[in-house]
Amino acid sequence: MKALRYYGPHDVRLDIVSEPRITNPNDVLISPQWCGICGTDLHEFLDGPIFCPVKPHPLTHEAVPVIMGHEFSGIVKAVGSSVSSVQPGDHVCVEPSIRCGTDCPQCREGRTNCCSHGGFFGLSGWGGGLSDLVVIPSEQVFKLPEDLPLEVGALVEPLSVAWHAVRLSGFKAGQTALVLGSGPIGIATILALQAHDAAKIIVSEPANIRRKQAAEFGIHALLNPQVDDVVAKTREMTGGDGVDVSYDCSGVQATFTTGLHAVKSGGIAFNIAIWGKPCTYNPNECLLMEKKIMGSIGYVGQDFADVIKAIEQGKIKNFEKMITAKLPIAETVSGGFSRLIHHKDDHIKIICTPHPELLP
Amino acid sequence: MKALRYYGPHDVRLDIVSEPRITNPNDVLISPQWCGICGTDLHEFLDGPIFCPVKPHPLTHEAVPVIMGHEFSGIVKAVGSSVSSVQPGDHVCVEPSIRCGTDCPQCREGRTNCCSHGGFFGLSGWGGGLSDLVVIPSEQVFKLPEDLPLEVGALVEPLSVAWHAVRLSGFKAGQTALVLGSGPIGIATILALQAHDAAKIIVSEPANIRRKQAAEFGIHALLNPQVDDVVAKTREMTGGDGVDVSYDCSGVQATFTTGLHAVKSGGIAFNIAIWGKPCTYNPNECLLMEKKIMGSIGYVGQDFADVIKAIEQGKIKNFEKMITAKLPIAETVSGGFSRLIHHKDDHIKIICTPHPELLP
Ligand SMILES: [Zn+2]
Ligand SMILES: [Zn+2]
Ligand SMILES: [Zn+2]
Ligand SMILES: [Zn+2]
Repeated sequence: MKALRYYGPHDVRLDIVSEPRITNPNDVLISPQWCGICGTDLHEFLDGPIFCPVKPHPLTHEAVPVIMGHEFSGIVKAVGSSVSSVQPGDHVCVEPSIRCGTDCPQCREGRTNCCSHGGFFGLSGWGGGLSDLVVIPSEQVFKLPEDLPLEVGALVEPLSVAWHAVRLSGFKAGQTALVLGSGPIGIATILALQAHDAAKIIVSEPANIRRKQAAEFGIHALLNPQVDDVVAKTREMTGGDGVDVSYDCSGVQATFTTGLHAVKSGGIAFNIAIWGKPCTYNPNECLLMEKKIMGSIGYVGQDFADVIKAIEQGKIKNFEKMITAKLPIAETVSGGFSRLIHHKDDHIKIICTPHPELLP
Repeated sequence: MKALRYYGPHDVRLDIVSEPRITNPNDVLISPQWCGICGTDLHEFLDGPIFCPVKPHPLTHEAVPVIMGHEFSGIVKAVGSSVSSVQPGDHVCVEPSIRCGTDCPQCREGRTNCCSHGGFFGLSGWGGGLSDLVVIPSEQVFKLPEDLPLEVGALVEPLSVAWHAVRLSGFKAGQTALVLGSGPIGIATILALQAHDAAKIIVSEPANIRRKQAAEFGIHALLNPQVDDVVAKTREMTGGDGVDVSYDCSGVQATFTTGLHAVKSGGIAFNIAIWGKPCTYNPNECLLMEKKIMGSIGYVGQDFADVIKAIEQGKIKNFEKMITAKLPIAETVSGGFSRLIHHKDDHIKIICTPHPELLP
């Protein structure tokens, strides 16, 4: 079968490899249909290997080359003898973490996303979404509504990242939010907040193109931090108080500071973006106004189930607008990575398919 | 009447002033019996005026000299016509904040402690606990159990600071905690945690005398951060996970970092101490382990009610051990402030009385 494999920085190849098979009664054999390119993939391509194992991974026992792609939808081809949750022909998406399988402090409490011993399909071995076939344990395979186009099924993964953050922040209907940065995770956060019935969503984004994109998603106010006093304007738009929660989808000192200043007394400054270096702040701001600082990474299975339910109920809307390009997997590097490197701001989510016949 | 008044740095005098009177139907006239000296009082004495108004305070319309003392117990002498919660002869303690009285964003949501327009009895004018008489609105006067010695009634205020922090952190019975610094607030935090049925309380304190004091309060482990690897030992004592909540009662970079590292995935690093300067940390720690950073200041009325109830139920124990010296108010500066300046670590709480006959 065809499989896009990561060998090292700037070295990704479309190979012919042997097909995976069901070996465990719990396995599901999936034919990936659409797979999103993620910042992590690009990071591996430019500066890796970071996640991709150079020595055999302790769980998968694989080392580079490994098959890429962890944001994918697909069609079930076959199931192991004990699988009853899905059946051949079902449309599905995949929660792509590889569990450590031990009684580690994080997994023990269901925080599989915080486990530092795990891995990811599409990064750590055991196959991925940028190939013709992949085998996934059934508890990580989520059935999609039959009438949902499979290309938007590939968005469930990035939507789950944002859903997890919004859920952890305890965001309630009628509350207000400031989203800092409207890249893919910022947009997904906006959609998750709308599904949580936010009373007001304010977005701050310095890039003109990204602000234009964000405007498509029906938010309440759009600020440019290079021109606007984001904290003052946020307070103005929330009766002087500040928002209930700010979501930092950029992860730099300026957005951290703005996010913390812009929340009301008792509010939450929530970090979603991975940081490149330490940051500085005055803890007195947390003390005197009893603000909280929180953060999250990835998702757990529950978030996939929640996102699919919210899509079915029509609570997550317009998410198909997140897709800004569709490519065959043969063009993942030449058409996908290259656009994300040279025209980053033009794109929200680029998705690829192993089935060129699905392209217009 | 006698009243200890703050004039400016290193200038505190025992004056004779006119007696306050009930002017509002809601007022309670109290004869203070015991009043604790707080770090804030010392700060005003050494480096003030900070809280004490040099121009007429917008709420009290008073400027220095102002009567000191905000951690006090007393006996009700008279009540206004609409007061039914207490009566003459009752033993009481006082929640000493002065409310802004407006619809400010903080007070509107019951976060009177986060209001930046308010003040304090004993700092901002309208009298205080280091005097013969003071008038307080009845909703801030809390009845003490009749059999509780009035000197320990003066501890309800500092206990409420810690109670508020423990309550806000959502600490649950059976959880584990690390307390960083065992000064007065650290000790009060230990007592509040015990009242919340903590499964394990670990204390880290560099000063030998303070460690010895902390040992009196029945904690589970006592660490010296100058010798012990506090994070490693905390993990060891909690099955590898880290504690559920750390309480930073010191407010310096080292305790912040230790507190954040020592909590488990999903845990809370809670700040109680006021900070002198900004701090640095890596937000990835909050992201990857989904840790929270929180903080609190002071208390609200509910905390006083909770602390008194916990004392009545025998859930707060040994708190009388917090009192390390008793003085007449005439010796507040010579005997109290001077000890806290020159022998700070020897003392947890020094209390003063306007009634020398109460001293042994
Ligand atoms: Zn990803
Ligand atoms: Zn694990
Ligand atoms: Zn105080
Ligand atoms: Zn107020």
